[in-house]
Amino acid sequence: MKLEERTLERSTVFKGKILEIQVDRVELPNGHTSTREVARHPGGVAILPLDEEGNVTLVRQFRYPFAKVILEVPAGKLDGPEDHRLAAERELSEETGLEAGEYTYMGAILASPGFCDERLHMYLARNLSQKQSHPDEDEFLNVVKMPFDQLVELVMKGEVEDAKTVAATLKVKLLLNR
Amino acid sequence: MKLEERTLERSTVFKGKILEIQVDRVELPNGHTSTREVARHPGGVAILPLDEEGNVTLVRQFRYPFAKVILEVPAGKLDGPEDHRLAAERELSEETGLEAGEYTYMGAILASPGFCDERLHMYLARNLSQKQSHPDEDEFLNVVKMPFDQLVELVMKGEVEDAKTVAATLKVKLLLNR
Repeated sequence: MKLEERTLERSTVFKGKILEIQVDRVELPNGHTSTREVARHPGGVAILPLDEEGNVTLVRQFRYPFAKVILEVPAGKLDGPEDHRLAAERELSEETGLEAGEYTYMGAILASPGFCDERLHMYLARNLSQKQSHPDEDEFLNVVKMPFDQLVELVMKGEVEDAKTVAATLKVKLLLNR
Repeated sequence: MKLEERTLERSTVFKGKILEIQVDRVELPNGHTSTREVARHPGGVAILPLDEEGNVTLVRQFRYPFAKVILEVPAGKLDGPEDHRLAAERELSEETGLEAGEYTYMGAILASPGFCDERLHMYLARNLSQKQSHPDEDEFLNVVKMPFDQLVELVMKGEVEDAKTVAATLKVKLLLNR
């Protein structure tokens, strides 16, 4: 079956600090026309820092869309065309103060490809050394350290729900075959 | 550290078929004010159907935000306050024609909690029987069957990037301890 859709017309209905929302008129494979709502997002990075004692460093942050505090791996948005490896170093350092001697790229996830072009690159960070964290002035988070095995358990129980944290944790679990 | 943010003012800047975009003025934990861009999304379900020969049934769909065809587990949006277990049955049947005798709930993922309230519930579906698929008139997809182990490999190599597919596949891998 032919699957491709063709853009007929594009209109930007909102342009914010992070998001840009477009509503496009498209031609479907069957010749019908329809509309597509698209959220343009800069993309980001997520880092799972694992130390030699088998502990991970996570952050608890208030996530406004859910009005609650959520446990996540350190992460952040890309700053324009920034290299995602450098973004990973920056975000890990800003949020946790950690520096890593070794980064292993674990691929990317598309957060919600039906409506949004966000691609989030994931890294395993090892050979860690602790420096001073320096979050942005208006960034609020608490750093949490726990055994990696406990994080795997929280993910498998569905108590950790953040998609990038689920993906990064389970990829590391399989990579290490622990 | 105090993490909670307080809504001061809300304005809906876009209301589409799927998305509603709000821009809220909020009070940060330090008393500063800032804005939050929020995409309200109905949420959804994703289903990993695994047969007794160890094969999974996937779908290839054109994902407009990336302008490319992406390999994913069957999935769909919730229809208002619909029960997600029933939504899983509906979407699996519509997209692949499969009916499952056994559903195992695997928790949810929050696709992108920094800006969007999408929560996506995941199911493992087993004891499958093949009926006729019946996608919506303007829904275009190709059904693909492959060994589950091959899917795990594609996920681990980063060749499958869809977040719900990565999360569901790796959860099943650990659940089955294959």
